[in-house]
Amino acid sequence: MKIAVLGTGEVGRRLATKLVSLGHEVTMGSRTADNPEATKWAEEHGGGAASGSASGSGAGSASGSTSGSASGPDSGSAAHGTFADAAAPAELVVNATGGLVSLAVLESVGADGLRGKVLVDVSNGLDFSEGFPPKVVTPDGGSVAEQLQKAFPEARVVKTLNTMTNTVMVDPGRVPGHHNVFLSGDDEDAKAVVAELLGSFGWTSDRIIDLGDLSSARAAEQLLPLWLRLYGKLGTGDFNFAIATTPGT
Amino acid sequence: MKIAVLGTGEVGRRLATKLVSLGHEVTMGSRTADNPEATKWAEEHGGGAASGSASGSGAGSASGSTSGSASGPDSGSAAHGTFADAAAPAELVVNATGGLVSLAVLESVGADGLRGKVLVDVSNGLDFSEGFPPKVVTPDGGSVAEQLQKAFPEARVVKTLNTMTNTVMVDPGRVPGHHNVFLSGDDEDAKAVVAELLGSFGWTSDRIIDLGDLSSARAAEQLLPLWLRLYGKLGTGDFNFAIATTPGT
Repeated sequence: MKIAVLGTGEVGRRLATKLVSLGHEVTMGSRTADNPEATKWAEEHGGGAASGSASGSGAGSASGSTSGSASGPDSGSAAHGTFADAAAPAELVVNATGGLVSLAVLESVGADGLRGKVLVDVSNGLDFSEGFPPKVVTPDGGSVAEQLQKAFPEARVVKTLNTMTNTVMVDPGRVPGHHNVFLSGDDEDAKAVVAELLGSFGWTSDRIIDLGDLSSARAAEQLLPLWLRLYGKLGTGDFNFAIATTPGT
Repeated sequence: MKIAVLGTGEVGRRLATKLVSLGHEVTMGSRTADNPEATKWAEEHGGGAASGSASGSGAGSASGSTSGSASGPDSGSAAHGTFADAAAPAELVVNATGGLVSLAVLESVGADGLRGKVLVDVSNGLDFSEGFPPKVVTPDGGSVAEQLQKAFPEARVVKTLNTMTNTVMVDPGRVPGHHNVFLSGDDEDAKAVVAELLGSFGWTSDRIIDLGDLSSARAAEQLLPLWLRLYGKLGTGDFNFAIATTPGT
């Protein structure tokens, strides 16, 4: 699948790398076409240099400039470009930018670049301006996911993966035992696409909890204060939330 | 131990009943001395009728008016009275009132009735005024627990048990497998007292997660939106949160 990963931070790089390894044609989007992190990532995964249009640098074609990466474990392709460049050819867009800037990032993509596409929002609105632990910002008393959906009604927003560290996102087996990933979204087909993608990461269907419509993203985003406390206490992000239920429920 | 349980709702009655069964001298507090729920509860558990002062109706003395309940399974004593009556003789006070009215309830008790006492806050600030699911109210951007601590600095507030349904609070074995209860508080000795009480409910020490100081109660209170979503989805409150960790953490 042609996938744009918006954001060059740890989360974006981890997700993009996993997606390339699964055979997807991934373009990492950032504010500028020559972002050093994105350039480095694309090079490491066999991608070409950025150009004005991501589709000219290997993205959008599995046989593009990244086809020379046969020596690596990656079976997909890696490219980079601006947020808009990355989103333009993509069938699915991953928002891996910080939740406080996500709206501005998507505004730079524009409605045309998002129309009809599945928009996987893994962000959290964390305000570090007063130190650690950051405050969790809930736009308009809701969630970042709802804020994005409201701004881009023709995107098909699905909230997921925001309740764990990036290494666990792409490798649930890293944390032993039963634990869960949550899904929120108004578009059932979009949620099914994302559930399948999660499945390819190792999230078996019994681990995926569909919380309901997109307003349930509030519940997932409000888990962050607990996540941050546990992170501080355990000294590692290698943990995850689990829901213990009685048999039959 | 002499314990006041403030609140006559399901949570208060469940906790009070468990505490009586464990041999504690429990007084259920409510707004009025003749509250029907509290009267019924005290009678069912062998307690005497309410009087102007709870200490005159069996509370405060294991050999009081409730000593005639040898035929029942309860080994403690049950009485009832106003919030202030209940708190006056208690060594430990449980706030099982709704989080939106808890401050007013404790103001009716007054600082003298709470000074130096462990105040176990199991409340959640749920605003049902716009229907279900309720909004979770976080006073001053914090938590109900912090609000209470600020108003009564000489009480020793410990937040716990607010992240599960009342039947699970007093019987963790009701939900199979590993799952957790959280503790937050500024007073380490008070947290140790509460951890021991939780242990008597069946919460073994490996299930109790001390999140840190009382500001961590925000994290626990902000779990409620997820709890409410899961409750709606599963159709039962017989579930609980668990933290899956890697060995050694």
